[in-house]
Amino acid sequence: MLEVYHYPLCPFSRKLRIVLKEKFIGFELFYEPYWERRKEFLRMNPSGNTPVILKDGKLIIAGNQPLFEYIEEIYGDNSLLGNTPEERLVIRRIVEWFDVKFYNEVTNYILNEKIIKTVSKSGAPNSQAIQAAKKNILYHLDYISFLRGDNRYIAGDKPTLADFTAAAQLSVLDFVGDVPWHHNQNTKDWYALVKSRPSFKPLLLDKIPNFHPPANYANPDF
Amino acid sequence: MLEVYHYPLCPFSRKLRIVLKEKFIGFELFYEPYWERRKEFLRMNPSGNTPVILKDGKLIIAGNQPLFEYIEEIYGDNSLLGNTPEERLVIRRIVEWFDVKFYNEVTNYILNEKIIKTVSKSGAPNSQAIQAAKKNILYHLDYISFLRGDNRYIAGDKPTLADFTAAAQLSVLDFVGDVPWHHNQNTKDWYALVKSRPSFKPLLLDKIPNFHPPANYANPDF
Repeated sequence: MLEVYHYPLCPFSRKLRIVLKEKFIGFELFYEPYWERRKEFLRMNPSGNTPVILKDGKLIIAGNQPLFEYIEEIYGDNSLLGNTPEERLVIRRIVEWFDVKFYNEVTNYILNEKIIKTVSKSGAPNSQAIQAAKKNILYHLDYISFLRGDNRYIAGDKPTLADFTAAAQLSVLDFVGDVPWHHNQNTKDWYALVKSRPSFKPLLLDKIPNFHPPANYANPDF
Repeated sequence: MLEVYHYPLCPFSRKLRIVLKEKFIGFELFYEPYWERRKEFLRMNPSGNTPVILKDGKLIIAGNQPLFEYIEEIYGDNSLLGNTPEERLVIRRIVEWFDVKFYNEVTNYILNEKIIKTVSKSGAPNSQAIQAAKKNILYHLDYISFLRGDNRYIAGDKPTLADFTAAAQLSVLDFVGDVPWHHNQNTKDWYALVKSRPSFKPLLLDKIPNFHPPANYANPDF
């Protein structure tokens, strides 16, 4: 059995929960407030980031990209990375874009300023950072639409790790009402598709004390 | 033939040059001052980062992690990633540590403040950022020593992508004399080993106008 240490609003934890469900892999969730830098947790993952998997009580699977590559290698069914080196190159490039660029330019600001500062009671949100994120998100929404084009999903007609990476990031912002969906209809249609998958449903039921996601957060037909 | 768009002091470009040499893959180098955001370059790689490979004048190989995974998949000889999923997990975790954490906490500050600001004539260096990098580097030097232990290299007795990733980052700082090698002898011994490999030699000959690397930069027995 896999033990997954996660924080509900960590985008990388969310991606992992979706991916494990998509691959029909059983797991048990453990709540990890990573900013508290718990000693036992740092021993598993010195970088201090969620998520971390403990497999059979022994093997530690951590590190964002290494963790997802390992899952693809070990649980080959329902591959989410593509079938040829060229397909994997395309999908991994989109994954890196949202894991690194989108995260640094958008999610990181909203998550830290609006959410983590509130739950950890560590000061007032920096409104400049939040404004920067709200401005930056617009071109990323357009980029998703550009990548999708006339396809159903971002990297073709089947959902891949590219979709789940991008959607996991967006879902964190959606939880606090910070995705201007009206900005791009094609992107909104894509998100509705991803959001309606059974693998996504548990994320829509997450509860965080003091936060009340907007009514359409949990509604696939928003 | 591979066309490699690189900047000599970009740590990810340096890693690529080492890796291609380790795998005996021929390539031609093209100088790319990425901060100028050249249109033709952005068309190849919208994120605007070096390095980028153009293969047979057609296939664009870009994105840091996706690019190195693709090279491993296509040029399987002399694998630098390990032989089992568990070995690859360990090596990829170290790679991610230096590509992301070390880069964000150390290289990024020194590269932008000391080097890019000078060559692009875009303002005075921020001394606070440089001081932060100089403080942060110390625990990373100890971490390399911890990982190496009694082995020759970071992930065992053979050099892997983990070594080339970490050494490429350090080599940028070494170029401007910002690695306090006396801080950890085990780490210094490891770097001397990596630095003396033929794949590393071209990096030691790089010239950048207005910069004069310290005398021991190009000396493997420093």
